[in-house]
Amino acid sequence: MPRGVAIIGSGMAKFGNRVNESLMDLLKEASTKAIDDARIGDREIQAVYVSSMLVGELTNQTAVASALADELCLVPAAADRIENGPASGGSAVKNAYLAVASGEYDMALVAGGEKMRAAPGDKITDLIATMTHPTAEYVNGVTLPSLAALFTRLYMNKYGVERKHLAMIAVKNHANALQNPYAHLQRKVTLEGIYSSPEAEVNNPLIADPLRLFDMCPVSDGAASVLLCSMDMAKSFCDTPIAIAGFGQATDIHAVSQRADPTVLKAVQISAQQAFKRAKLTPKDIDVAELHDAFTILEIAESEDAGFFEKGTAHKAIEEGVTCLDGDFPINPSGGLKARGHAVGATGVAQIAELTWQLRGEAGGRQVADAEKAFCCNFGGFGNNVVSFILRRTN
Amino acid sequence: MPRGVAIIGSGMAKFGNRVNESLMDLLKEASTKAIDDARIGDREIQAVYVSSMLVGELTNQTAVASALADELCLVPAAADRIENGPASGGSAVKNAYLAVASGEYDMALVAGGEKMRAAPGDKITDLIATMTHPTAEYVNGVTLPSLAALFTRLYMNKYGVERKHLAMIAVKNHANALQNPYAHLQRKVTLEGIYSSPEAEVNNPLIADPLRLFDMCPVSDGAASVLLCSMDMAKSFCDTPIAIAGFGQATDIHAVSQRADPTVLKAVQISAQQAFKRAKLTPKDIDVAELHDAFTILEIAESEDAGFFEKGTAHKAIEEGVTCLDGDFPINPSGGLKARGHAVGATGVAQIAELTWQLRGEAGGRQVADAEKAFCCNFGGFGNNVVSFILRRTN
Repeated sequence: MPRGVAIIGSGMAKFGNRVNESLMDLLKEASTKAIDDARIGDREIQAVYVSSMLVGELTNQTAVASALADELCLVPAAADRIENGPASGGSAVKNAYLAVASGEYDMALVAGGEKMRAAPGDKITDLIATMTHPTAEYVNGVTLPSLAALFTRLYMNKYGVERKHLAMIAVKNHANALQNPYAHLQRKVTLEGIYSSPEAEVNNPLIADPLRLFDMCPVSDGAASVLLCSMDMAKSFCDTPIAIAGFGQATDIHAVSQRADPTVLKAVQISAQQAFKRAKLTPKDIDVAELHDAFTILEIAESEDAGFFEKGTAHKAIEEGVTCLDGDFPINPSGGLKARGHAVGATGVAQIAELTWQLRGEAGGRQVADAEKAFCCNFGGFGNNVVSFILRRTN
Repeated sequence: MPRGVAIIGSGMAKFGNRVNESLMDLLKEASTKAIDDARIGDREIQAVYVSSMLVGELTNQTAVASALADELCLVPAAADRIENGPASGGSAVKNAYLAVASGEYDMALVAGGEKMRAAPGDKITDLIATMTHPTAEYVNGVTLPSLAALFTRLYMNKYGVERKHLAMIAVKNHANALQNPYAHLQRKVTLEGIYSSPEAEVNNPLIADPLRLFDMCPVSDGAASVLLCSMDMAKSFCDTPIAIAGFGQATDIHAVSQRADPTVLKAVQISAQQAFKRAKLTPKDIDVAELHDAFTILEIAESEDAGFFEKGTAHKAIEEGVTCLDGDFPINPSGGLKARGHAVGATGVAQIAELTWQLRGEAGGRQVADAEKAFCCNFGGFGNNVVSFILRRTN
């Protein structure tokens, strides 16, 4: 039987344009905050996991986990970098969880980060596209925005989702990010401004039909970190250990066009089902979720495939305000990828860091009232590798 | 308490110049062999770990573990890529071990590979150097051969190692590789030819004083794979499960010049000590070892720091033939990195695959007689992240 594992520390380096800092600076900033947050005294951090998708391609550095262990004076801790596309962060937390759950390590640090702003936009779009199918997609010029556009159109046709619903998600997530000091985009966005006014066409131009600028996450620098330890040890010195109650990870058919129904995100379904089974909970038990809204449509699709809404109905819930901060089931209180930002390798860790604060009641102006159980879902590729977690307040 | 974990399958794609195959081809070839070897029937592989240092830099593909899961029809298995420089393979096996030891997964596939020959040699040398310290080493033009040359000179001065001893290691490992169908370099090499004859200066030219051509591993394409499952399950269907009796992983100070004594490989010492402690064994119990001889001097230094010889004495053992295939303590029966080859992300997995064959008695002409307990050590950076394992025959 795996041991119980707790999150005891959470830290973040502000997402945005961190032009003056290196990736290592960002990883150190987030990690130091997470370690300080946990007040571990002289207890030893025995393992370090770093998630980054593109550190080797975008900087002149590899084996970055070993470097971070040295920079943080954690030598001789074990250290590994995990790369799983945009789900690198979730994968790193999962492997750190397994290290502690196995009983082989008592305390493990996870730091996820990416430094993307220094590269030109077309280079970033190409590098991100390297996670698509190499012969069926990549060589034919497929990019993530183009896949998301095709997915959105199918979704609109099948389920009656309208552009209005996509815009409402952007408005909601930007509003949440205004309350998040770590968010990349901190500006008020209105439905009039990006959807229903005459100026909306200019403010929110078409990028990949039907997707517009405000349907897409920004390209961010940033880092996030969490510190994990065995629940038994956590309870001996930590007032607010947050339990990793369950996790799941699933792959799907790589080429989107080969899936039986491309509007169904099977890896989201399976990874969420695994997480709920391990946690002995159901979607109805969850108070707050961080979903991987790299594109607005993904917040809708993931919220359905994870089991929070019937397939094809999440857009109605959005109309009714259910997923707003003060709604019945708030999604992306952090602002999500849409507005908190998407520093690719950091994102999965940032979801866990945010939910840790939410479950402790430390999320300030974006706090979800009485949050006790939380879900997140980190989406790799175009849904061909998804990592889900359920976190739970323990006191 | 962690569960017992067994290796039940082992496969390899020949190291060398695999110009006509992609990295994915090599990973599939090795994985398919490992899966076939294990005869798992309809039992499910639930997790896939891929190790590769440079897949993103050298090919147009990221998230390669998700792609491999799809190619092998293992969807929806979890899948992660692990990058830890030249110790990526050891790290991947370690994380797969933790996944199974935790009880969360019953069966996990590890595939390590690298496709390096397609890139020009100076590009490869530069990419490999990205694992050195970014400000103290890399920007000043440090490469791995230059670090190894400085290390060798210190070692010669301090311990009386001579060029002859280095050449003897090359001769031994090339002889072993002649018996290994998966080896990159399969040619007879004599001490006369590379050291003591007049032609030796031409055959074995100086590369980075005091290192010569035959002190260095080749740049290889290749892949290796092992299949892990819980020992309990393994015993139910496998006649020859090989136990992962212990593992260790340790980091060291990144910049070599900052270490108290640069001739001491502390990460080798600590990772080996961890592995022996977990296995409840001592170096005297080990029958055969695969060490990370990217440079000949490393076989000497690692064999000492792992505890098989007193510091400064391994070269005497080499003179006496102790480490030859028919000696008291054979090292690198596969041919090692020197001659089996060094496809960076594959190497740590290839060590485990070779030792699995050795412990089963399936190593053909390079079989170490009566091998029951084996050790390996996968060396990342210039020793700033090392992963060690002890394997044991269980029947």
